[in-house]
Amino acid sequence: MERITSNLGYSIDVDYEIDRRVAEELSGGNRFVVTDSRVYALYRGRIDFDALGDRLYVVRAGEASKQLKVAGKICERMLAVGCDRATEVVALGGGVIGDLAGFVAAIFMRGVSYVQIPTTLLAMVDSSVGGKTAVDLGDAKNIIGVFKQPSRVLVCVDFLATLPQRELRSGLGEVIKTALLDEELFGRVQSHLTELFVTESEFIFDTIVRCIRFKIGVVERDECETGLRKILNLGHTIGHGLEAADGHRLSHGEYVLNGIRYELQLARFRGCVDEEYARRIALLVDTALESKFLPLKRLDRVLRYAASDKKNRNGNICCILPVREGETQEAVYTKNEFRQALERLV
Amino acid sequence: MERITSNLGYSIDVDYEIDRRVAEELSGGNRFVVTDSRVYALYRGRIDFDALGDRLYVVRAGEASKQLKVAGKICERMLAVGCDRATEVVALGGGVIGDLAGFVAAIFMRGVSYVQIPTTLLAMVDSSVGGKTAVDLGDAKNIIGVFKQPSRVLVCVDFLATLPQRELRSGLGEVIKTALLDEELFGRVQSHLTELFVTESEFIFDTIVRCIRFKIGVVERDECETGLRKILNLGHTIGHGLEAADGHRLSHGEYVLNGIRYELQLARFRGCVDEEYARRIALLVDTALESKFLPLKRLDRVLRYAASDKKNRNGNICCILPVREGETQEAVYTKNEFRQALERLV
Repeated sequence: MERITSNLGYSIDVDYEIDRRVAEELSGGNRFVVTDSRVYALYRGRIDFDALGDRLYVVRAGEASKQLKVAGKICERMLAVGCDRATEVVALGGGVIGDLAGFVAAIFMRGVSYVQIPTTLLAMVDSSVGGKTAVDLGDAKNIIGVFKQPSRVLVCVDFLATLPQRELRSGLGEVIKTALLDEELFGRVQSHLTELFVTESEFIFDTIVRCIRFKIGVVERDECETGLRKILNLGHTIGHGLEAADGHRLSHGEYVLNGIRYELQLARFRGCVDEEYARRIALLVDTALESKFLPLKRLDRVLRYAASDKKNRNGNICCILPVREGETQEAVYTKNEFRQALERLV
Repeated sequence: MERITSNLGYSIDVDYEIDRRVAEELSGGNRFVVTDSRVYALYRGRIDFDALGDRLYVVRAGEASKQLKVAGKICERMLAVGCDRATEVVALGGGVIGDLAGFVAAIFMRGVSYVQIPTTLLAMVDSSVGGKTAVDLGDAKNIIGVFKQPSRVLVCVDFLATLPQRELRSGLGEVIKTALLDEELFGRVQSHLTELFVTESEFIFDTIVRCIRFKIGVVERDECETGLRKILNLGHTIGHGLEAADGHRLSHGEYVLNGIRYELQLARFRGCVDEEYARRIALLVDTALESKFLPLKRLDRVLRYAASDKKNRNGNICCILPVREGETQEAVYTKNEFRQALERLV
């Protein structure tokens, strides 16, 4: 077990042993657990969901559940079953559940505490850490939310044993993104990429710990994304746009990986990236993507999503571009400039 | 003009001159203004709403607009018209608008800043100050929300000139509640109550300033209602229950005044209130209420609402009871004890 403590007031345990650790979390009294239909079906034999009674809320698996009205329904149930300000919400699932249940915890009675128990690689290395809670508004992702740190995060790496390869690749998107920000991780991921598909490996455990440490370090310095934290959005400016334009057919991480590829091209256009480094990034991303390359189509939608990004200021579009190992720079485009840049990428 | 500064990071201006001060606020660029149909109709001749174009959102006047789905609709509009994290939301209206627009500001893109411009006495002395934002869930009041302080509060006392007497009386509920917490205010309100109905008086200006100072002082010491701030809920445990059970026929302040009357009786039952002081409170409340006494009916609903109050812990019901001038005590009842106490009041 590895315990990562942060100065944000909580710690993150990276461990195995779902049966013991999750049971401990759920038996604490005055809990309200949110999970999804997939986790419920996979783990009902190992996690005693029945004991939770009507303090268990199971949403349909998938991004479509991450809506404001679902958050409202969960709050209604919490009220009906007698939850109060001392209730602790447990988010047991992937990124959708973490974002949704975290948001519910942020707004129910003006805020109760919550625990993240991520079950996907994506949620383990990225979304369960850092206190971003959110729901979507129609198909505008994460437009509604609150910054609210969890009171604990429990990562049981053995959840990965039941994770489909596609979801694993989704997590790799964020691992590779982190590797572009963290020089040491870049070297390790470059030379061990295939091991990341072996979910019981010590390497994946160490990579998860490393990604969390890196992210926590960034969030500690900029909790509400006014500066440094923006670097974590590398690959996401175009990645989110592709995801929306493409109708969420691929996983989030696959869109991020495609986003990294295209944003790498933007960096080349600007001449800001070391060419040898760019080649290594391209190789890494292509290996992880296994030919799931997306053509850049529907530029208007991609542009519209990029233009509605929360990190934008004064209508300009911010993009984090790789420069050299462990170094990025922020490029700011007017909407028109960004359209022209995208057109060159087609 | 009186400027009240707080260590919560913002100041509150109490002033006259709607025409100049509100125009200044609205002309600041990158604003999004939320108001209601009543304020819009009354002030369209004096406030240049047209200049705001689609950055003005007018909700139907009344508590029914304070719902999660209305907050979602406002966020949708904000997104559609290009609002970003630098947008400042302006809440121009009474308590419903302040709570709703404040909540929108708290959740849009994980938080933008907002300005409170209260137009009712209730909002001036109470809800615009202190950073409680909220929406209702069905008829459970303020069950969803966030603590988020505004970036400024602008109180233009001249808004009271168009306020119906009923709304004025609603504000008096919170003024009298504050007077039970603030010894000096109690004396002043007791000897000048009728002047509170003369909206242009210096006395009402001074009373507003005094109430805001008192509330800010409490909120500064306990922003998230973990302790001291609970005293501000005097009259509200039963008041909110009456309001829900009675279907919002009276104004909020009238329910609070009725709540104070009944909670005063609870204090008498417990023998914790000075009897002479109790008589003076009763006289003050009765004068303000002008015979709008509510019988305590539908005890089950009153009890249910009291039991779902956010300040409760472990299913027990907290009630703030008057003791002597400027002094209160917190009484904690089990649900059963509270039912028995209510039955004695019928």
